[in-house]
Amino acid sequence: MNPSTSALLTDLYELTMAQSYQEQGMDEQAAFEFFVRKLPSHRNFLVAAGLQQVLDFLSELRLTQEELAWLDHTGQFTPELLRYLEALRFTGDVDAMPEGTIFFPHEPILRIVAPLPQAQLVESRVMNLLNFQTMVASKAARSVLVAGAKPIIDFGLRRAHGAEAGLLAARASYLAGFAGTATVLAGMAYGIPLYGTMAHSFVQAHRDEEIAFEHFAQAQPDNVVLLIDTYDTEAAARKVVSLAPALKARGITVKGVRLDSGDLADHARKVRRILDEGSVSHAQILASGNLDEYRLRDLIESRAPIDSFAVGTAMTTSADAPSLDCAYKLQEYAGRPCRKRSEGKATWPGRKQVYRHCHRDARYAYDLVTTIDDKVGDLPLLEPVMRDGHRLAPSPALTEVRRRVTAQLEQLPAPLRVLEDAPAYEVRISSPLQDLAQTVDRYV
Amino acid sequence: MNPSTSALLTDLYELTMAQSYQEQGMDEQAAFEFFVRKLPSHRNFLVAAGLQQVLDFLSELRLTQEELAWLDHTGQFTPELLRYLEALRFTGDVDAMPEGTIFFPHEPILRIVAPLPQAQLVESRVMNLLNFQTMVASKAARSVLVAGAKPIIDFGLRRAHGAEAGLLAARASYLAGFAGTATVLAGMAYGIPLYGTMAHSFVQAHRDEEIAFEHFAQAQPDNVVLLIDTYDTEAAARKVVSLAPALKARGITVKGVRLDSGDLADHARKVRRILDEGSVSHAQILASGNLDEYRLRDLIESRAPIDSFAVGTAMTTSADAPSLDCAYKLQEYAGRPCRKRSEGKATWPGRKQVYRHCHRDARYAYDLVTTIDDKVGDLPLLEPVMRDGHRLAPSPALTEVRRRVTAQLEQLPAPLRVLEDAPAYEVRISSPLQDLAQTVDRYV
Repeated sequence: MNPSTSALLTDLYELTMAQSYQEQGMDEQAAFEFFVRKLPSHRNFLVAAGLQQVLDFLSELRLTQEELAWLDHTGQFTPELLRYLEALRFTGDVDAMPEGTIFFPHEPILRIVAPLPQAQLVESRVMNLLNFQTMVASKAARSVLVAGAKPIIDFGLRRAHGAEAGLLAARASYLAGFAGTATVLAGMAYGIPLYGTMAHSFVQAHRDEEIAFEHFAQAQPDNVVLLIDTYDTEAAARKVVSLAPALKARGITVKGVRLDSGDLADHARKVRRILDEGSVSHAQILASGNLDEYRLRDLIESRAPIDSFAVGTAMTTSADAPSLDCAYKLQEYAGRPCRKRSEGKATWPGRKQVYRHCHRDARYAYDLVTTIDDKVGDLPLLEPVMRDGHRLAPSPALTEVRRRVTAQLEQLPAPLRVLEDAPAYEVRISSPLQDLAQTVDRYV
Repeated sequence: MNPSTSALLTDLYELTMAQSYQEQGMDEQAAFEFFVRKLPSHRNFLVAAGLQQVLDFLSELRLTQEELAWLDHTGQFTPELLRYLEALRFTGDVDAMPEGTIFFPHEPILRIVAPLPQAQLVESRVMNLLNFQTMVASKAARSVLVAGAKPIIDFGLRRAHGAEAGLLAARASYLAGFAGTATVLAGMAYGIPLYGTMAHSFVQAHRDEEIAFEHFAQAQPDNVVLLIDTYDTEAAARKVVSLAPALKARGITVKGVRLDSGDLADHARKVRRILDEGSVSHAQILASGNLDEYRLRDLIESRAPIDSFAVGTAMTTSADAPSLDCAYKLQEYAGRPCRKRSEGKATWPGRKQVYRHCHRDARYAYDLVTTIDDKVGDLPLLEPVMRDGHRLAPSPALTEVRRRVTAQLEQLPAPLRVLEDAPAYEVRISSPLQDLAQTVDRYV
């Protein structure tokens, strides 16, 4: 069983509703939109991510015979629904912001238009995919803004929430500007550059730390990054210095050392001095260990001589905001715009478009959310990506998505580029959209 | 590609270290232990979970030809390592606390003893599996303690971190005492009871809310739970009352209503009165919407007439503590106990056992962590579960694990059963273990 591709990775109510839609013949076109209601604290913007996986999911949507047999055996579903599910393929349209687009609350980043039961059935997984990668990319982008040219590597697999989270966090952080990941499968699946050093256990398994370093260098002559905090960080740095000439004689260069505990800035300064005085000044210092964007900023502002960073748990779990207040809501059925008005959760009705307005220097000025027929700008953010269940083009390369994020981060207003909460970016709701909401409310 | 079963869902360093172990012939028995260094804030205890998935992973560990070919193509690995990986099967031993065991910091909940490269290679995924389910089960148990006899249902799939997180959060919360889940695949994969109602979109897709209710009742006559907050909660409750007699005439009973927004306690009181005065007093009230154990407690203490709760994002993401400070550390190699001494991350060396000591009334008194040869109690918590790569018994049924949690929560000292941070439960480190640590340090 592969949970990542099973059509039964969904909420039960998607099936019970489908059964009623079936009975009532309610299969006209429905438009659902995915958006974020409000920013989590500590976020000034979001980075759209996960569209490629959503399109994969929609393209491949089908139930296996085993799944159908299991549904049948529960006795909860009619033969008509089971027949419908057996034939189920996604035949709808998708419009979306390209991955890597910076966006803000109330802006739909994806719209699905399909016969009602189809558009409804995919809800749980579409949300599951967009929520996670968008959340991680948005968190990772903050570290990227702080680190500037210094590379950051994803070390988060072990505390990511399960298999897919580990894999997709590598993807989302890379597209946000990380240099690569330690997760091997992400290298194979997405071509993301892989980085890795050694574990403390490697040092412990040897009776002697310096011999451990030597063995590692011999096995990985092109990637000699040595972990030096297993016992005594500065003592280990001196061992690196003492080992370097013998390695050099064999054509092996010590590429760097990794610090993983204690006061990283202090250790980095001491280790830098030891390496420089020991003629190993070419060796870089990589720091890891409970890092997040705030600790990165502290280390960088303290001018600690650290060349690159590994960030794990805090980014992979988006520890300070481990979910988005996101929704996938019905905005139109059978040509009739609609919205929910639940307290604190009201939505804007109908199919919508988002236009971004920029200053002359290309910095973002404000966004305008409006009805789909109201063309009021040059830069519509949602683009057609799927028609009648078929992709209009292959998903862009991840490197292209990465360049988009880099470019858009440049265009962000300066106050939004800092870690502190900034005044909200302006998202205007157009008059036609406000009028539509009033009209819709009159008819309920 | 199924990330849940791929042997390449691992960190690159596991492979680079394996290459060195290969070259050096370092394949003697290594003992690694998984433990939590300290409790997250807002947790007084942890619930061990995830062992079944770890044993599945170890039993099925192998690389596919596609994975081997990809590794080869990277040019980073020797033919010797690739041959080793092609033949790789897990042949080691596992001892562990049974799933559902309550445990505390510094207590190993799992030990793997295997040839060094094997025991090392499985690190990333073993941690990934145990961290997530233990974290979720420990969070879910807090809601269970608060809710008492009132059922709680997992609604968390949409904001879980990916596919496997959604599936395994359903499992972990069920074993911790939840009544069931909305995630259909968790019903199929683990036999967990499924619950579901309807979405707001169902009401919106109909022009009339009462007709929506009627259609839903017709499609799900045995499971009529109606969502009543799409527009006006009390008005919708009155529609339920007006619809009930017609449904009753057709043999359909309204089982309940769901509240999902606004002041849940206030709405529940008003809705309860409307239902009771309308002769629908048998209908229960289910509450959902950003609930966690604190909001559950508030609602219960306010005596809001709510019969059951759905808890989603906060539990699935363990929002207030989305990771554990956990580790998988080498404690012995080739018969030689070892430990790391990194600042703030020192570990206790050697293979260990945990003994639980109870008061006469069966409440837990204290735990003792000691060396494996030091038999000092009647209740050793780690049990043999795998030998030479073979399971010693099938994993227990999830219902059995669930009963274990229920029983152990009863035995928890009262101060640990509340939501507030309590003084730490006593975990003693035995004299033989302290002596061993001193001896080990002398030889490094």
